[in-house]
Formats: sequence, C-alpha cells, structure tokens
Amino acid sequence: AMTVRSAWKPSQKMIPKTRWKRSAPHSPFNSLRKNLAMIKVGLLGAGRIAGVHATAITANPDSTLAAVSDYYPENAEKLAAQYGSTARSTEDIIADPEIDVVLIATSTDTHSDLIEQATQAGKAVLCEKPVDLSLARARECLANAGKSCKPVMIGFNRRFDPHFAAVKAALDAGEIGKTEMLASTSYDPAPPPIAYIKVSGGIFRDMMIHDFDMANFLMGAAPVTVSAVGSCLVDPAIGEAGDFDTAAVTLTYADGRIATIRNTRRAGYGDQRVEVQGSEGMLQVSNLVENLVTKSTAQGITSAKPVLFFLERYMPAYAAEWNAFVEAYKSGGVLPVTLDDGVAALAMAEAATQSAKSGLPVRLADV
Amino acid sequence: AMTVRSAWKPSQKMIPKTRWKRSAPHSPFNSLRKNLAMIKVGLLGAGRIAGVHATAITANPDSTLAAVSDYYPENAEKLAAQYGSTARSTEDIIADPEIDVVLIATSTDTHSDLIEQATQAGKAVLCEKPVDLSLARARECLANAGKSCKPVMIGFNRRFDPHFAAVKAALDAGEIGKTEMLASTSYDPAPPPIAYIKVSGGIFRDMMIHDFDMANFLMGAAPVTVSAVGSCLVDPAIGEAGDFDTAAVTLTYADGRIATIRNTRRAGYGDQRVEVQGSEGMLQVSNLVENLVTKSTAQGITSAKPVLFFLERYMPAYAAEWNAFVEAYKSGGVLPVTLDDGVAALAMAEAATQSAKSGLPVRLADV
Amino acid sequence: AMTVRSAWKPSQKMIPKTRWKRSAPHSPFNSLRKNLAMIKVGLLGAGRIAGVHATAITANPDSTLAAVSDYYPENAEKLAAQYGSTARSTEDIIADPEIDVVLIATSTDTHSDLIEQATQAGKAVLCEKPVDLSLARARECLANAGKSCKPVMIGFNRRFDPHFAAVKAALDAGEIGKTEMLASTSYDPAPPPIAYIKVSGGIFRDMMIHDFDMANFLMGAAPVTVSAVGSCLVDPAIGEAGDFDTAAVTLTYADGRIATIRNTRRAGYGDQRVEVQGSEGMLQVSNLVENLVTKSTAQGITSAKPVLFFLERYMPAYAAEWNAFVEAYKSGGVLPVTLDDGVAALAMAEAATQSAKSGLPVRLADV
Amino acid sequence: AMTVRSAWKPSQKMIPKTRWKRSAPHSPFNSLRKNLAMIKVGLLGAGRIAGVHATAITANPDSTLAAVSDYYPENAEKLAAQYGSTARSTEDIIADPEIDVVLIATSTDTHSDLIEQATQAGKAVLCEKPVDLSLARARECLANAGKSCKPVMIGFNRRFDPHFAAVKAALDAGEIGKTEMLASTSYDPAPPPIAYIKVSGGIFRDMMIHDFDMANFLMGAAPVTVSAVGSCLVDPAIGEAGDFDTAAVTLTYADGRIATIRNTRRAGYGDQRVEVQGSEGMLQVSNLVENLVTKSTAQGITSAKPVLFFLERYMPAYAAEWNAFVEAYKSGGVLPVTLDDGVAALAMAEAATQSAKSGLPVRLADV
Repeated sequence: AMTVRSAWKPSQKMIPKTRWKRSAPHSPFNSLRKNLAMIKVGLLGAGRIAGVHATAITANPDSTLAAVSDYYPENAEKLAAQYGSTARSTEDIIADPEIDVVLIATSTDTHSDLIEQATQAGKAVLCEKPVDLSLARARECLANAGKSCKPVMIGFNRRFDPHFAAVKAALDAGEIGKTEMLASTSYDPAPPPIAYIKVSGGIFRDMMIHDFDMANFLMGAAPVTVSAVGSCLVDPAIGEAGDFDTAAVTLTYADGRIATIRNTRRAGYGDQRVEVQGSEGMLQVSNLVENLVTKSTAQGITSAKPVLFFLERYMPAYAAEWNAFVEAYKSGGVLPVTLDDGVAALAMAEAATQSAKSGLPVRLADV
Repeated sequence: AMTVRSAWKPSQKMIPKTRWKRSAPHSPFNSLRKNLAMIKVGLLGAGRIAGVHATAITANPDSTLAAVSDYYPENAEKLAAQYGSTARSTEDIIADPEIDVVLIATSTDTHSDLIEQATQAGKAVLCEKPVDLSLARARECLANAGKSCKPVMIGFNRRFDPHFAAVKAALDAGEIGKTEMLASTSYDPAPPPIAYIKVSGGIFRDMMIHDFDMANFLMGAAPVTVSAVGSCLVDPAIGEAGDFDTAAVTLTYADGRIATIRNTRRAGYGDQRVEVQGSEGMLQVSNLVENLVTKSTAQGITSAKPVLFFLERYMPAYAAEWNAFVEAYKSGGVLPVTLDDGVAALAMAEAATQSAKSGLPVRLADV
Repeated sequence: AMTVRSAWKPSQKMIPKTRWKRSAPHSPFNSLRKNLAMIKVGLLGAGRIAGVHATAITANPDSTLAAVSDYYPENAEKLAAQYGSTARSTEDIIADPEIDVVLIATSTDTHSDLIEQATQAGKAVLCEKPVDLSLARARECLANAGKSCKPVMIGFNRRFDPHFAAVKAALDAGEIGKTEMLASTSYDPAPPPIAYIKVSGGIFRDMMIHDFDMANFLMGAAPVTVSAVGSCLVDPAIGEAGDFDTAAVTLTYADGRIATIRNTRRAGYGDQRVEVQGSEGMLQVSNLVENLVTKSTAQGITSAKPVLFFLERYMPAYAAEWNAFVEAYKSGGVLPVTLDDGVAALAMAEAATQSAKSGLPVRLADV
Repeated sequence: AMTVRSAWKPSQKMIPKTRWKRSAPHSPFNSLRKNLAMIKVGLLGAGRIAGVHATAITANPDSTLAAVSDYYPENAEKLAAQYGSTARSTEDIIADPEIDVVLIATSTDTHSDLIEQATQAGKAVLCEKPVDLSLARARECLANAGKSCKPVMIGFNRRFDPHFAAVKAALDAGEIGKTEMLASTSYDPAPPPIAYIKVSGGIFRDMMIHDFDMANFLMGAAPVTVSAVGSCLVDPAIGEAGDFDTAAVTLTYADGRIATIRNTRRAGYGDQRVEVQGSEGMLQVSNLVENLVTKSTAQGITSAKPVLFFLERYMPAYAAEWNAFVEAYKSGGVLPVTLDDGVAALAMAEAATQSAKSGLPVRLADV
C-alpha cells in the first residue's frame, strides 16, 4: 500500500552544507534558543506574501510576530494592527537582540543584502525565493552568510505542499524503486504585466526556478547539463521585453537520469503537476481542483477546473513551511531548505537562460 | 494489491439446481458431446441481438452457426448469408439431431415455449432474458425443462462484463471481507416507445431485472424482502400505460445485509454502476466513457460522457457469455447462469411490482 | 460550463419560518446591531468542536470571542487563554447585555434549554446539532424560542462544505433541470464507543440526521414517507445497546421524487458522497482524499484514501458556516439554516427509527 | 461541450504528397475500383500482427482476404485455413491481377522491396511501420513507389486509436485554440530480448517512431530541430548492444511550438499518454486501464493497472485503420497516412539518434 505521509523528511542533499546541529558545543544557536518557548519573529515586508507568513507565524504556538517593517510604513502599521504586532523600521528589527528570526518577504533586489545583514546580526533567516537575480551576487551572499554560521532557509514552499511532500516520502520509502525520469509541469493561468516581466529576471529565474528546486528536491542531486528551448507564443510584448513565455528544459544527471520541465505563462487554468518514473513504477501529482463535484449529462462529464492562483494552490504549504522552520529551529536540526538550495536553483536558471539563447546544452559546472 | 481477473467464476447459488456434471454415468450430454470439436448452434431469431450472438458464435473456435430461423424468413436468410450459415424453420432446427445447442433470441413471449421444446428435443439452450413475463409460466417452464435434464442458461450477460466480473472475482477472493451492502444503479439514456412500455411487463420486469440478477450474482443469495417505490417523472404517458419510469428498491437479506437499486428510464447519458460495501472496504464499478480524453480550460474540466447504449456498453460481455457457455458445455460443468437464476430474478421483479403498488414491503417467499 | 460557486445561497424552504429582515421596523435585531463593527460572541462549551468554532470566530474580522464557559471551568480557562478571551459562567454570559451572540457547543442534552434561555435573554444563537434527542422537546423549544423572535441557527455544517454547496448552487442554477432522485452516502471509518452509542439517540438521530438535512437542503422540500431498514453487521454490542450499525432509508416526496440514504458506522475509510439525478443530468460529490498522489505499477494503480474524520473532511465548512451566520446577522437576512430545519431533520430521524423497528413505511405527518 | 467524435479526419499535412483523387481523369485507381463491391487483399506475412489484420479484413464487409503468404509456408497455410483464405507465394500474390491490395506485415527488412514490387505491379499497399531502418533506402522507396502513382499507406495505427483520434478531432475543431506544446509519453512494460534490440534500429527508430508520427499527426507539421538524450538505466546489456533504454526528445517548430517525448523500455505497466497545450486549454489522453473497478479501504484506493501490451491497447485501432484504408480506397480520397509520413517519422528518428550520440541539437533538414 502507498505511503501517504504528508510530513516533510529531510532529503539527501547533493551539496555539502553548513550543518545546524543541536549537539554542537559551539552551536551558533545557543543564544537564539534561550527563549525557545516563543520564537520572536521580525517580518520584513508587509505585502500579500507577508500577510500569508503573518498568519502562519501567529498560528504556530511556538512563534510570535514581534515586529513588522515595510518600505511604506503605513503598510507595516496596517499588518501589525491586524496581527497584534508592532511596526518598526527594518534597521531596528535587525538590530534588536530580542528578535530571534527575521523573515524576509521584501522585493527580490533586497534579499541578498538583508540576508547578509540579518545573519551578521545573529538572526536565523527565512527568505522568500529567489536569493537574487544575479547568480554572482547570490554566491557572494552565500559566502558572506556562511561566515556568520547563522541558518538561512529559502522559501521554496512547494517542498512543503502535502502532495509533493507525499511524493518525496514515497520516493524515500523506495515505493517506486530507483528514480529514472522526472517531469515537472507548471503553467500559470495568465502572464503578469509586462512591467513585471521586465524586472523578473525572465521565465527561468522567475517561474521555472520552482521546478528546478522541485527537481533537486525529488531527484536528490543537481543535474550535469541543462538544455532549454524558449518561445514567445502568448504575447509578443513578452518577447520584446527580452523574455520567453513558453519554455521546455531537459536536465541530465551524472548517473544517466533525465528530467524534463515545461512552463507556460498562460494556460487559462492553473497547472501544477509532477511525475517521477522509477524502476518499479510511477508517482504522479495531479492538479488540485476547485471542488469535488462532477456533472454527467448527455453532452459529457464536467468538473471544476484546477485552482487558478498559486496562493490558493499552495496556502497549506506556507503554513507547513513555517512549521518545518520552527521545528528545525527548536531542534537545532538541519534546515529543510537552505541558502545552498537557493543558489543551486538559481544556477540552473542561469544555465537555462544561456541555453535557450545559444540553442546548445550548457554544463551546470560552467555557469 | 487488487485482483483484476476478468475471468468468470461460478458463484455459490442460493437455490439448489440441476447439476450438469461430466462424470455422471447417465449424463444427458454424452450424445451432445460426440462432436465437441465443433458445437453446432441453431439460432432462433435474426434481430439485432441475434446478430450479436452470431458474431460471438463464429468468433469462438469451438462453435459454428449451423442454422438461423426467424418469424420473417427473409431476416433469417440475410443473417445466415452474412455468417455463412443456413436459414431454416424453427421447427426444423429444433428437430434436427445434428444441432447441439439452440440459442433463443426471439421475442419474450416465445421464450418459455421454445425452452421447453428445445430441451425436450435434447438440446442444450442459451435463452435471452427474461424467461417469461409471467412468473407462474416461468416456474412451469423450469419444471418442464427440468424433466429433460438438459442444461438451460439464461442470458444475464452483465455477469460476464469484465468490470462486474472483476468485482465478483474480488469478492470471491475476500478482498473486502464479508459483503454488507450493495448499491446498483442502472439508468437508460432515454425511454423506449410507449408501445414497447405497454408490453414490457413494466420497469421491474423489463429493466430492473438486470439489477436483481446482479444482486443475486454479487450477494450470492436471494433476498427475504423487497420494498419498492416507483414514480412517473419522465413522461406521463408511461404512467398512463401503467408503468413507472423512476424506481428505487431496497432488498433485505436473512443475514441482515441490505441492497438498494435505482433505475430511471431517462438519464440523458447511460449509467451502469454497482458498488459493494464489505467489512474491509468497498468495490465500485464506474461508468465506461466514450474515450479517455480530458480537456482542461479556464471554464473547467470536461471529458467524454458514459457510452449511451447497452450494446455499446456490454458488447464484450456477449462474447464472454458465449465463451463461458461453450466452456461449460465442453467440460460438462455447472452453467454459470441457469434457468433457476432467471426465475429467481423474475420473482424479485414480481415482488417489486406488488410492493410499488401497495406501498408495503413484500416477502419474496410470498410471491 | 459548470458553475463552481462555493458561496451559499438560501434555499426555498418547505416550512414557513420566522423571517429576519433588516427592513422590518420592529426588527428584534435593532439592538443587536448597534455594534455591528464587531459582533461579541459568548461560546458555551470548550471541547473539541468549541475549539473549531473559536478559530472561526477569531478569523472572521467582524466577530470577536468575548467569553467562554464550560462545565469544567478549567477547560474554559484554557480555551480562553489560547484565543485571548475570558472564561465566565454560562449564566453570566447569557445575562450579559454586551454579548450579541451565543454559540452553543455543549452536550446535546443541554441544547434546548440553552436555546430557550439565550433567546429569552435577547441573544442570537448558533447551536450545534441536534436540537434535542426528543422530538417533542425540540418542538417545544421551537415554540418557546419563536416567542422571542430571536434568530436561531442550527449547525448543519455540511451545507457549507464547498463541495455540497457547489451542488446546491448548480441545482439552483438549473444545471441538471428538475431534481428527480437523490442518493446520500455517509460512512464513518469506525464506530464510536458503546457508551456513546447508548446515549446517542441511535444511528438515525446521531448520524443519519446529517443526510436528512442534506436531503432537505438539496431537495428543497420535506418528504412524505420515510422507509428505513437497519441491521447490526459491524458489532453485536451495538445491537445489544438497541441500535443499528448499518442502515438504508428511502424517502418519497409529494411530487414523486425519491431519495435514498445509506449509513454504516464502520467503513474503514471515511465516505461522504451525495448525488442528485435531474431531468437533464446528474451531479455527484466524490470523496475528499488525503493527497493528490497516484502510483502506477505492475500491480495496479493506488492513491490516497478518503480523509478519515469529519473534522478533517469538514474543517473548511465550519469557517464557512460561521461566516454565513455573521453575514446574515449583519444584513438582517434570513439565516441559512434555522431551528425549523433542526426540528425537521429530527422528525425524519424519529420516523426512520419507527420504520426500522416496524418494518413499515412511516408518514412524516404521523410523527 | 467537448467533441468526442472518434471518426478519423484527414489532417493538413506538412509535406506535399501524391494526391489520390476520385475525380482525376487518369486516376491510377480506375482499374482497382472495378470490383469495389469486394476488395481482394493479399496478406504478406502470417505472424501475430498479420492475424490482427486478417481479422480486420474479414470483419469489413467491403474487403476479403484473398491470399496469404509467409516465409514459412505452413504459417501461411494455418492462417489461411482459419480465415477461409488460400496460402500462396509472395510472388504469386503480387503478380495476380485479381489482387487489389497488398498488406505487408513481414519483417522490417523486406518492407521497402515489397512496397516497390507491389506498387510496380499496380497494387494499392498498406505496409506496417517502419518503411525501413535506413532513411536513405526509405527515401529511395518513396521515389520508386511514387513512379507507380499507387497509393501506399503506412501502418501508424495509433492515429486511429479512438482516444488519440478524438484529440485530433478536438484540435481540428479548435477546441483548445492554437496548439503550443505537445507532450507524448510511451513506456513499454518490459524490454524486448537483446537479440531483438540488436536488429531493431534502436529505441528512436523502433519505439519512439510512434511518438514522432503522433507529433506529426497532432502538430500538423514537421519540426525544425530534434534534441535527444538517451540513457541506459534498465539493463546494461541494452547499452552494450549499442542502444538506449530511456530517452527524452525535444522538438522545436518553425512557429515556435515545442514538443517533448519520453520513452522507457521498462515501466512495469504500460503507459501511452499524450497531451496538447493550446492557447485556450489542454487536451490529455490518459491510460486505458484493465477494468473500471476501484477499491477503497483503510489503506487507500486501488484500481486496475493500465493494459500492458500494445495489442491489447491498440486492438480497436487496427480495425479502424483498415476501415479508414478501405474508405479511402473506395472513395479515391487521400489516404489518412502515407509513405511520406513514414519517411518523415523515420527522418526524425535518424535525427534523434544522431543528437543522442553527439549531445547537440540536429536540424531535421540536415539528415
């Protein structure tokens, strides 16, 4: 019978990373853990995703929303009021020794700086993806944050989705033997505004980065080569902005395994599927639909469409992500997703961007 | 893992029946089996169902279509020509000692007479359901046919449908423990003409008789009580003809088990489902749809409707039915469905008809 | 295309009921609505369901958890602390003019008394089902509460389940024409302790009452006759306690429509399905499964089982139920479920209990 | 509502091809059509597939199995006896002016020669895929057969599968707008013997050629580039034989569309899926499973596995293929699949073989 555990279990990571062990005598978290009964969180950013994180923080009995900041102070005030917290400046929050954890939910261009500042100030960090649009800057951030030995988790929330997590658990339990092929399909219902496209870093860094991390999560290794093709089929303005709106990528692994990824920015409906072929069978995650109602008539059978938006699709994943962070924080264990993972996915996006432009495969080691 | 055998397996029957054993020293089939290499079949009737049987007979390497008769001789000629056979009169076919098996696919009012004549002439018989519209006449036919000790199979073809047969096999294998509740749903896409309704014997004898036999097949016992409700929601003309077009029946069994059956003569689409609840789980047969294509759009998900007509739905069952008959004939084993089964289902239809009129439960022993 | 609205829409009720209109000059809620910006709720009971309601109350921006009481004061203290509220006595809460709404989540035997006391004290009420185990007492409560003209909603939360609510919306939109047959299937994974069985009122009052209300909700009318059969197939101790563990009911309606309901207290898995047949097609709600993962191997296809427990299955329904109450409270509109509905379902349970014992259909008008 | 027509409709082909029009004054089929009432077919080959074709030929009322030949004459004798035909030599059959159509179901290495001989002798031809393992030889055959102006159809039977044909019909009807991405997945349950692998031409010519033709069929155009990766994950002996057992291919089209194909020679179960993403939605063909039975228990939900073998999966497609050939033959219309299509798929297999070896994309125009 199939294992349907939704609990997250740490994967064998492909890149050695800073361990965060409770038993370490000089653990950098000894000071952090003094108030384990209630982890004090400073939330940087007060936008839509920040609100989702605020809910998760307050719902977890082990964490409290100590402070909120935003570029627009009135947004921070509003969010703080709703969740019984306090609006402060980002600098104040990072400097406050009472704050244990900084959750970075600001715009992408500030991520690297804030990770560095927060870790330097001794905070544990959960930062929204991506680390940075520049792979070089992200690697610099990794090096700098590493000096502080403070744990940094990157918000690849899909790893905590109960459906994808059940696939991971089944793979770890050997339910389909040895993995051989992975296929990841992520379609947005509609493209973002062109203004956003222009600063997004492109489809590979902005959208497919989730599939790259999912491949790393489920395949348990980084690929050797990345071959990408990209097209502009949805809106010529996306092409004029220098991006693709439709893309397919093939990844090859050192042991011969193969992964394929497909993205489009406009499917009409939302599509978030993954399947893994193993030596003893296949695991598939199908789409989450709006409701369980089916209608049968003389014309055919109809049912509700897949949920449209990522917030609707992944809301339970945000809570599970925060709970996993808190659990690792409390136990001093390895973080389920690390800054290394964020840099690894970004490197794959960089390789895919190069490959789609050149028309040739790119070795991941060369980016 | 689930058993998916589609092969038919004999059920434990609730009514003692004439055995048809190869080893019996005075087996009535010793003479029949002299030409086992090729069973010679006389087909009575040349209508639509007769054509389906003709295909099954010729496709089976152990049987040949020796002769065809029909009330309209030109229909018999036509069918015989298509399948390389000969048109003859019904009397000739029944009297011919070279004919081993008579397959009765004539109108219902002739079934009892032809079963009696054919068995008296020493033929093995496969007769389309129902045995008769009159329960008394069917019981008389059972008694008369029993005198000849010739095997008579009634064409409850749904027992041979690969999906229902897989349920039976799973039940026999104990996959859901002990059976507790059965639910059978049979909806026709559209009602037959009123002229047909008038001579059909009513919804319980004409349509629900299949569900009654399915209940006997899967529950492995006859019920103790039959409670029926019937309504006329589709077409008032059906009610004026003395029939219902919508009906629900509850059956109770001596050991406390319960079965429910629902029929409507007009669903728009075709609906043929059954589910069995057991002490360790549930088995369900879902509808067969026209194709495996699914369409996902911003409006929802659509797929093909269930196949409309019983011939489309049950075509593989007709071939499997004939093959099971031939196999039992060759081995001298127990027939998978017998004349007793035909009478048993008819008695349930009689009880349901009485119950729907009186509004009270009817004991099967009282009809 | 199918309508997939999950929003609740008021049904055409079969029984005239006290209207609760904003425009009524002498509206009993004029005083209640003075602090509409924040509805003050007194929660009676601090058990598991009370906790679910506490979450829903605090999550709704228009309501606040003003006070909590419980038979065991320490339970009230604990729940109050978790949600930032105050523990008080039931009498204090009901007497407090600052409390707008009383939510009754105590044991069943206290429901009628508390409904009467709270409405007499001028509170609007949301009370968990059932109103009472005694139909006579429930009718008395209805009469007494009616004198106060205070609105009372009964917590048939399944009406607010997004899947069942989508069926209701589709029916109201005429998506399958006129309704003809309903089938409701509710299976618990495992039976409750015998001690609970003994005080539960029996399977029809304790378990099938949800299906009775679902029939009233979706069929938009009360039935004329109730025919029930019950068996004890799961555990003889349940029979010795005077109850059934397996039951099937047929309802007939004045216009000829038919509903069938099936319950078992032990399915192993949880089963919560409903289907409605109409003149133009069928609507079905399938089971909610634990995750969206499917495994295909040489042995077959496996997927996660339906969620086991009603809290897991219906958690979103509790929040939707509270939000619907708040919306009706704020607008002064008709409550989506009323005390009349609670009494109506209880009368059907009474009729079913009588029918299962006598073996005869019972007219609802006769109970 | 979705179009569920299973009827084949001719596609817009990407390569100009010899037309076969009834109205052409010098139509090469004037002589062939003299006996249209019954098309006389000579079947070359008497193996397993030849038997499937024999059934289809005899089941079609417009065609008759006039003669059978085989390398082993006793095989031809046996097949001829079963279907009431005559065993003759291949040379005799091709030379016989009474034979209208030659169906070539011999070993691959004889296809090109027999196509040339049969067309030169004035026969219409249906030849099993592939045309040849050598692209050069196949092109030569195309040129030679073209001289005779006799119609040649290649047996890409999957085009006639009711499910894939329904996708094609839906695409032609514009149900998902303009096509953008195609994904084709074909997994065999188990690899063939190594001896077969060695003469198969490799996974791209032997197995993925079906997916290449499906891409041509559904995309309605040939790709511009072919990028392939291949691995040996199933059995090292396959690699030692110079082949891959696992492969993924990306195709790009002149208008920016993208197709991805995945194959493995060992999935345990059989997997035959295709999906097409268009500007207004997605069409998917799911796997055909062995039966419609689902089992729900405390451990999960199980159902029957996809049918294992291509004959089981595609049996209805062989009959539909032959019927389409007969219809085109009778009407003098364009054949639904032509020799050009056979060469086009083979060129894609050649390009994929080169790409998998070089690790670089190959332009189809360069092979």
